[in-house]
Amino acid sequence: MKDIKVKIENVLPNDIEKRSFEIITEELGNAELDPLKAPIIKRAIHTTADFDYLRNLYFSENAVIKFQEAIKEGTSIVTDTQMARSGINKKRLGEYGGEVLCFMSDEDVAENAKLNKTTRAVASMEKAAKLNKKFIFAIGNAPTALIRLYELIKEGRLDTAGIIAAPVGFVNVTEAKNLIMELDCPLIVAKGRKGGSNVAAAICNGLIYECNSNK
Amino acid sequence: MKDIKVKIENVLPNDIEKRSFEIITEELGNAELDPLKAPIIKRAIHTTADFDYLRNLYFSENAVIKFQEAIKEGTSIVTDTQMARSGINKKRLGEYGGEVLCFMSDEDVAENAKLNKTTRAVASMEKAAKLNKKFIFAIGNAPTALIRLYELIKEGRLDTAGIIAAPVGFVNVTEAKNLIMELDCPLIVAKGRKGGSNVAAAICNGLIYECNSNK
Repeated sequence: MKDIKVKIENVLPNDIEKRSFEIITEELGNAELDPLKAPIIKRAIHTTADFDYLRNLYFSENAVIKFQEAIKEGTSIVTDTQMARSGINKKRLGEYGGEVLCFMSDEDVAENAKLNKTTRAVASMEKAAKLNKKFIFAIGNAPTALIRLYELIKEGRLDTAGIIAAPVGFVNVTEAKNLIMELDCPLIVAKGRKGGSNVAAAICNGLIYECNSNK
Repeated sequence: MKDIKVKIENVLPNDIEKRSFEIITEELGNAELDPLKAPIIKRAIHTTADFDYLRNLYFSENAVIKFQEAIKEGTSIVTDTQMARSGINKKRLGEYGGEVLCFMSDEDVAENAKLNKTTRAVASMEKAAKLNKKFIFAIGNAPTALIRLYELIKEGRLDTAGIIAAPVGFVNVTEAKNLIMELDCPLIVAKGRKGGSNVAAAICNGLIYECNSNK
């Protein structure tokens, strides 16, 4: 590789992720991590290079085990963005029988959102509720999706295998996450303003990849 | 909205982005921003809730104007992830004639990567170079894509309208961005470890949305 003045570490493509996780582990130093939560925390840091995720992630009791049981039973994941859908490893999830669904671009969702003067994210959650299936929700963008999930569950119109709540933003984001944390279902929440479709996808992948480690 | 104990601000969906940018502007306080760069810096913060992007973003001389000229001429954007492709506003870009291309899932790219023992990101950049069109590159994941772009340009095998360099990560990411900053073409670089497909897409959208403001 000629002409290159900066030092490029000689790491094979397949080893880059492994080496990245080693660096993250080194830099976390003496931070004591729950071994079930650690792969998810590290994957959120891996996806953002933001060590705030060491403190940002809230897990409800036995959340990791419960999500992984659901995944192993073939539970599908509903996202609120095509970006989150793109980022989740659909092949690995598919090995357990689940798929990743995003209704945001569906025509009926756009129509219902317009009709009800709400967001497409809200209409997407309502569409999911009407399917009467037990989904995992991975929300990386819309606080309105979280608020609607809360209402649907409280009204007894939705049963869920768990919610990954990771919208990013400045308006109603922290509040919507605080609301979701009142629910009695498996939860992984990126508390505060930070999160994103990439973080929601990373949390899903962290759960999927470790399904066979945690029995 | 009954049963809700947390305070949700009453902001209409369409106003949430506007309100978010107001909050970001407030919190940036006295930071003096170049008016051309400001919408891009704020959009990167909006996408991550991470104010580090105030200091992280490098712009080559007149980068914003040059990227926007290219967009207005109908230049297409090549990404290194489907996530970045998902996040770019293809409708707004399409109004100028451009489209968003991602070759990562193409069969010939997978074959060439295997054949040449390299990454699909490298094979994607090589595919783009062979098309002999002047693209904008928006790289949100693979440092190997940046390194290959650098080589292709130095070898005279690729001409580009500009590179948005925003991979995230721990191995060769900072180094690959430092390498790209040696190039003499329009550049917007998320320096250091941080970035991601969401950040690459946000930078593209920041450019696209302001195309008509900057003449």
